[in-house]
Amino acid sequence: MRKLPICLLLLSGVLLPQSSGAQDPQKPARVSDAVVTGRWVVSADLYGTVMYFTFDLKSEGNKLTGNLNGDKLEGTLSGNAIHFVAKDEQGGTEECQATIQDDTISGKLVFTDAGDEAHPETHQFTAKRVPQRRAGVPHRHEFTPTVFYRQFSAANQPVLTIAPGDTINTTTVDAGGTDEKSVTRVLGGNPQTGPFYIETAAPGDTLSVHFTKVRLNRDWAISDDAVVDRGLDSQLAVKMKDGGKIVRWHLDAQHGVATPEKASEHLVRYSVPLRPMLGCVAVAPPPQQEAAPRTGDSGRWGGNMDFNEIVEGATVYLPVNVPGALLYVGDGHAAQGDGELTGDALETSMAVEFTVDVIPAKRIPGPRVESSSHIMAVGLDGSLDNAFRDATSNMAQWLTDEYKLTPSEVAQVLGTASEYKVSEVADRNAGIVLKINKERLQPLTSTTK
Amino acid sequence: MRKLPICLLLLSGVLLPQSSGAQDPQKPARVSDAVVTGRWVVSADLYGTVMYFTFDLKSEGNKLTGNLNGDKLEGTLSGNAIHFVAKDEQGGTEECQATIQDDTISGKLVFTDAGDEAHPETHQFTAKRVPQRRAGVPHRHEFTPTVFYRQFSAANQPVLTIAPGDTINTTTVDAGGTDEKSVTRVLGGNPQTGPFYIETAAPGDTLSVHFTKVRLNRDWAISDDAVVDRGLDSQLAVKMKDGGKIVRWHLDAQHGVATPEKASEHLVRYSVPLRPMLGCVAVAPPPQQEAAPRTGDSGRWGGNMDFNEIVEGATVYLPVNVPGALLYVGDGHAAQGDGELTGDALETSMAVEFTVDVIPAKRIPGPRVESSSHIMAVGLDGSLDNAFRDATSNMAQWLTDEYKLTPSEVAQVLGTASEYKVSEVADRNAGIVLKINKERLQPLTSTTK
Amino acid sequence: MRKLPICLLLLSGVLLPQSSGAQDPQKPARVSDAVVTGRWVVSADLYGTVMYFTFDLKSEGNKLTGNLNGDKLEGTLSGNAIHFVAKDEQGGTEECQATIQDDTISGKLVFTDAGDEAHPETHQFTAKRVPQRRAGVPHRHEFTPTVFYRQFSAANQPVLTIAPGDTINTTTVDAGGTDEKSVTRVLGGNPQTGPFYIETAAPGDTLSVHFTKVRLNRDWAISDDAVVDRGLDSQLAVKMKDGGKIVRWHLDAQHGVATPEKASEHLVRYSVPLRPMLGCVAVAPPPQQEAAPRTGDSGRWGGNMDFNEIVEGATVYLPVNVPGALLYVGDGHAAQGDGELTGDALETSMAVEFTVDVIPAKRIPGPRVESSSHIMAVGLDGSLDNAFRDATSNMAQWLTDEYKLTPSEVAQVLGTASEYKVSEVADRNAGIVLKINKERLQPLTSTTK
Amino acid sequence: MRKLPICLLLLSGVLLPQSSGAQDPQKPARVSDAVVTGRWVVSADLYGTVMYFTFDLKSEGNKLTGNLNGDKLEGTLSGNAIHFVAKDEQGGTEECQATIQDDTISGKLVFTDAGDEAHPETHQFTAKRVPQRRAGVPHRHEFTPTVFYRQFSAANQPVLTIAPGDTINTTTVDAGGTDEKSVTRVLGGNPQTGPFYIETAAPGDTLSVHFTKVRLNRDWAISDDAVVDRGLDSQLAVKMKDGGKIVRWHLDAQHGVATPEKASEHLVRYSVPLRPMLGCVAVAPPPQQEAAPRTGDSGRWGGNMDFNEIVEGATVYLPVNVPGALLYVGDGHAAQGDGELTGDALETSMAVEFTVDVIPAKRIPGPRVESSSHIMAVGLDGSLDNAFRDATSNMAQWLTDEYKLTPSEVAQVLGTASEYKVSEVADRNAGIVLKINKERLQPLTSTTK
Repeated sequence: MRKLPICLLLLSGVLLPQSSGAQDPQKPARVSDAVVTGRWVVSADLYGTVMYFTFDLKSEGNKLTGNLNGDKLEGTLSGNAIHFVAKDEQGGTEECQATIQDDTISGKLVFTDAGDEAHPETHQFTAKRVPQRRAGVPHRHEFTPTVFYRQFSAANQPVLTIAPGDTINTTTVDAGGTDEKSVTRVLGGNPQTGPFYIETAAPGDTLSVHFTKVRLNRDWAISDDAVVDRGLDSQLAVKMKDGGKIVRWHLDAQHGVATPEKASEHLVRYSVPLRPMLGCVAVAPPPQQEAAPRTGDSGRWGGNMDFNEIVEGATVYLPVNVPGALLYVGDGHAAQGDGELTGDALETSMAVEFTVDVIPAKRIPGPRVESSSHIMAVGLDGSLDNAFRDATSNMAQWLTDEYKLTPSEVAQVLGTASEYKVSEVADRNAGIVLKINKERLQPLTSTTK
Repeated sequence: MRKLPICLLLLSGVLLPQSSGAQDPQKPARVSDAVVTGRWVVSADLYGTVMYFTFDLKSEGNKLTGNLNGDKLEGTLSGNAIHFVAKDEQGGTEECQATIQDDTISGKLVFTDAGDEAHPETHQFTAKRVPQRRAGVPHRHEFTPTVFYRQFSAANQPVLTIAPGDTINTTTVDAGGTDEKSVTRVLGGNPQTGPFYIETAAPGDTLSVHFTKVRLNRDWAISDDAVVDRGLDSQLAVKMKDGGKIVRWHLDAQHGVATPEKASEHLVRYSVPLRPMLGCVAVAPPPQQEAAPRTGDSGRWGGNMDFNEIVEGATVYLPVNVPGALLYVGDGHAAQGDGELTGDALETSMAVEFTVDVIPAKRIPGPRVESSSHIMAVGLDGSLDNAFRDATSNMAQWLTDEYKLTPSEVAQVLGTASEYKVSEVADRNAGIVLKINKERLQPLTSTTK
Repeated sequence: MRKLPICLLLLSGVLLPQSSGAQDPQKPARVSDAVVTGRWVVSADLYGTVMYFTFDLKSEGNKLTGNLNGDKLEGTLSGNAIHFVAKDEQGGTEECQATIQDDTISGKLVFTDAGDEAHPETHQFTAKRVPQRRAGVPHRHEFTPTVFYRQFSAANQPVLTIAPGDTINTTTVDAGGTDEKSVTRVLGGNPQTGPFYIETAAPGDTLSVHFTKVRLNRDWAISDDAVVDRGLDSQLAVKMKDGGKIVRWHLDAQHGVATPEKASEHLVRYSVPLRPMLGCVAVAPPPQQEAAPRTGDSGRWGGNMDFNEIVEGATVYLPVNVPGALLYVGDGHAAQGDGELTGDALETSMAVEFTVDVIPAKRIPGPRVESSSHIMAVGLDGSLDNAFRDATSNMAQWLTDEYKLTPSEVAQVLGTASEYKVSEVADRNAGIVLKINKERLQPLTSTTK
Repeated sequence: MRKLPICLLLLSGVLLPQSSGAQDPQKPARVSDAVVTGRWVVSADLYGTVMYFTFDLKSEGNKLTGNLNGDKLEGTLSGNAIHFVAKDEQGGTEECQATIQDDTISGKLVFTDAGDEAHPETHQFTAKRVPQRRAGVPHRHEFTPTVFYRQFSAANQPVLTIAPGDTINTTTVDAGGTDEKSVTRVLGGNPQTGPFYIETAAPGDTLSVHFTKVRLNRDWAISDDAVVDRGLDSQLAVKMKDGGKIVRWHLDAQHGVATPEKASEHLVRYSVPLRPMLGCVAVAPPPQQEAAPRTGDSGRWGGNMDFNEIVEGATVYLPVNVPGALLYVGDGHAAQGDGELTGDALETSMAVEFTVDVIPAKRIPGPRVESSSHIMAVGLDGSLDNAFRDATSNMAQWLTDEYKLTPSEVAQVLGTASEYKVSEVADRNAGIVLKINKERLQPLTSTTK
């Protein structure tokens, strides 16, 4: 298969040389630098599918500089006509020819893949200026969900638009679609609260979601007694062959424990501490690549990660792929062993509150989590072996970007400070999380954070 | 997460006892056995999401027997009132209370999970009789595609409805969305021709697609010079770090070979034999589980398998999940090494013709392919190791079902006759295919085929 | 390949019927029950290779009962002649015909594989009674190593024989063979201190090794700045391509930290807490299966596990495979991140003290570790995915054997209490450890421990 | 763990500056260039463990050039005193100070790791000139084995010394140790015929073994009816739980087929074509790294590969690690499905004949096989996913070395011509083989072969 034209994957292309003069007999007055300079969210039309990315433009005199989705660009501003060329890392090019008017840039982009220079692709686009962050005190929104989506899609209508810095107080139904009043609202499969549209969030940014509340709002949960396939060698498979029955748990918030409602012989005194968590935190994936993943899936955009350290007090970082990011939350667990070995944790509805923020022009390769004690890089892939690689690579990038470590230094820190846990075995993607204690990092010369 | 209520995954539940008499003061006349007996496609409403399965009903006197999605059922027919209970393999139950009228059964189903008997779920449903297979000579349909879907979804509108036994003659655009006239019609990512609605195909059936033509209809293809991550150890990763450029290939149908258009120094005489194949053959997955996988993905429902033996003459078998099956084809390759190591094969548009048929009430666990010489079980999973297990399990089931072999006999045949090839490394799922030469199988006492 | 005759793998066989009368014209007086009853270590000669296992015999009147390596046996005692038959789980049989004299049983065993009854194998054997555990106060042994083996072999001469309950105080050289005085004593590759022969330890027992001291005895360690292949995706492989240089660390026992001797720019203030651990704890593997694994390898017999919770205070459990168990220790690390990502941890010599004990007739499937807070099951295999299965299966067995949990209960406990960490990525086997907090287990009705 | 000092792994070090003059008051006369120039096999003493590698020396005037184990060296010849320094790829150095006398170089080597320059290691060594290849007609040796080793060890005594070009005609016992007369000679586990010492073979060479005969020499084989764990998903594990019984097969050489001796119901007419192959072809591994792997294991040195294309007519290439290479062969299979899914193929004794040759100073990263139609690179690793990477990397190296392809060209050839099969799932290492049809390669500008 050809997943996508490389030019689009890389966002690299070369604009065909064109004489724009002929089209503009009356050259308009040159717009001021300030009209052009800034960050723009681009919506390009790819044969009917929309693709989002950004321009960062700086106009000085007639000279335009900046980047297109991270690729360095150079060009000119002439009247209200913009022309520039950027080059991707493979050597392909992307050329833009457009006009600016009323805070909108519109025109065409020509993408040319390295190795295929004779076959450029031309696409129409429109770009809107990334709005300024709202001034003033952040808002706190009370939100009562009425619709619960079953796909992490950019096509779902936002249920609320908020500003970066704002806080949302809301609830989630359990993975089976049942709410805090034990009413089933929707078919199971991790139906979500959201999506929330976060102003100013643009592709290439990072969204942060800081959870100030992840708490129980009912006194029961559902689980089962099977072990998922990733946990079964042939001997255990035979032993576990009759598993799969539902187990209801009583959640005792007062004493902080969960117990099976009808415990079998050896579990009559068994209990586990409550540690409410969210199985799902997601943003919409890039629609040109993954239009509508089901809410049981996960990826670089987060999703059904089932990581039991996404609890009250944690902050989740996700890469923004579409304007507004489109944040989803759901799949509360009253408690969960690492990996969610039985496929179902203690599934329950949840009361949640979180504060959202946007880190502009910061690209991260996948989900990250931060607690008061640790930074944590999440790896999600089709096997534990590959998830391990992803988590390691994600953290190596973190240390490189935030602490400016050289590769040799990255290895030395990882070799001495890595804490790896298995975060997910219940779903299509397996998960490994690489944690580093902040005490190790504090002495490093950090340039940010 | 709780993927789905077990009751729905297993389709097992218990109908709550209800006195139907009170609702029907005037008991209607009992319908004849023939009105009830037969196969029915059920559409159940699960809090707004549709779920499809089948009833197989046999009415004798007042007694109803048969199965619900394979689970054995027993009940009664009283007037036009149907009541039955089935039991799933976990010990849960599913109870149906409904009425039949005008070839439609409508009513409610109550599903109860084993271990959670106190919390049954009730859902409305409607069932339509599976239509009789059309008599007469099968048709041959000329079909010119105008829309190309990028998701293997049950929600896409069928482009054509055909009968089992019919043949379709059509074309596919290449993985990048470009057709036989070199016109790009749609964004890349394996846009498909279809879906085709096949009459009588019902969940629990198997669809067979026999390809009578898979041929080139233009003289060029696109590929690249990168190696996908699954092929790279750390040494090869360093060596291949600059890969990813587009390589155009000339397709010479007359001489049956492909050659790079601008071959580099050592490849000036390099050529590969043309062996046109389809990367994608799919049916719609069950919408309650996977609503809209992108056309780069694969699963038990087929999809982007990139198996280079899906060529002219081959037959592909896929499990039907929704009424009409909804068949998709696309992603033609003029030639491809095993696994599609570069991510792109020789991507090109294709002229295809295939005859479709339905094997009623035959369940298969995943895609299968048959050639003149071999039967082939496809395993698709997140790692080669798991794909290997899937392929082996798929074939073991085949030998068990079709040749009635015992487990010991299955092992003896697999140990001596297995041919395993790596079929896919380019996509999210890896693929392994287990092939068995029909010469080995011919002496086995087969009960079918 | 045929790894080993199944009969030997399973230790199942059938003794050919033989008339022993002809060989014993003068039937000796029947020995007393006490002479036969008890536990015996068997050394069987398999065409020149020795194989060890046990008989557990109980004589009452003329009737013999008990088990052969866990397989239930029945037979007779007649004079000093022993005859019994045991049956393995596959249906094969093992028949013993022997005589007892002077605390030695000698004779022959005939093993017959299920399915191959016409081809029994006959082997001579000798059995010695497992010695009684010594009475009195356990000893504490000061041991100064002079030889350092590089293979975990049953063929290496024991350096010391001790009784169960005894304590050894000794030292280990570092993984490179260098001792506490910075003298290199042997080629690197984890040379070991030991093996120690533990009296009464017999195949089928479990050895426990409780570490009362794991401490530094010099002030430097060696490490490097590469990342092992299991941690590298293709992007990180390119970034890390120049890694592999030696990094010396200063060990400051007083302040409890390690620091790079010549720290590069961003690491000048970097330090890690000392947490001395042993990378290797092993017993000899069964010689008929694995004669001489290098000390960089690991398996069900322990070995180079590199698990950073094998620290002072921990207890390691290993399955005994040969008489005396043959315990090895080595490969001290001053500190190590999970998995030993750089291949070398902070490699250093070590002062260690440990108390050894034997749990008779307790079979465990692989290494286990216990701390004051957790029980931990180690999984070691060729991939993280398989190591995960091994760890889960090992712990499921633990919960079944020690806490008598049913499969359903095992799943409920694992689903809610599992803590999985990646323990090893640096060697041929990857490692995953499944930990359970003892607070979860305390309320379970335990029958042992 | 610290596997081995990096200096030794890389064979890089720096000789400490030493004044040799003091030791040699009477400087001997300078030896002629011819006395020094050539290839030398070095035996270095590493604290009691021997390590083998090579010097390639060229003396011109007083100047010495060449390489040490592939690392470029420069130095001087003064009288009979040799002094040179080489540099490894990490930046470490290796300095040699020695004297030459009677075709022997002896002295010391000092290895210094990059990053650890303050801690060089000094080792004594002796080097012998690699003997000239014998002139004249190659010999054909009839060899009747009497000893059968169960470890691929460099420590085993060679059973025969032959010259490159010679042919050996011999037999192998089956994997269970039973010979062509049905006499069991040794405990099972793939006991080997050999090792054969091949004159002139030195570390850094490649050994080729061309099989001119791989034929049956008895009429029965043994197999079983279990499926190995790598083939079992949880469903198939339950189905196969009672497997593991022995199955005897009759080998009918006249008709070229094998049939179960006592076929069960559905297999009474089942037969498989005979295709005799060798499961094991190995050389001794480097003793400093892997002293004595059991004959059920495999690695870069070959071993128990169970690849069913190692048949009559095939040539196997293995990297030489020790002087004489020490070739082992064994584990004949009358027929085998891909991967040896049942753990045992049709295990039988075998009559084999092969011609051995040495390709000097040609390093290969792992086993390779050549047939009349294909070149084949074998990948062996702990998972199929990693074996896939190994096979791909091995073949990429082959195309780079033999056909001088650039990385881009390697990708283009692999993407269009790769044939991947699963070769091994029965043992600790899984195996994948990447095959390329020689018809694809013929047009490439090859510089060798």
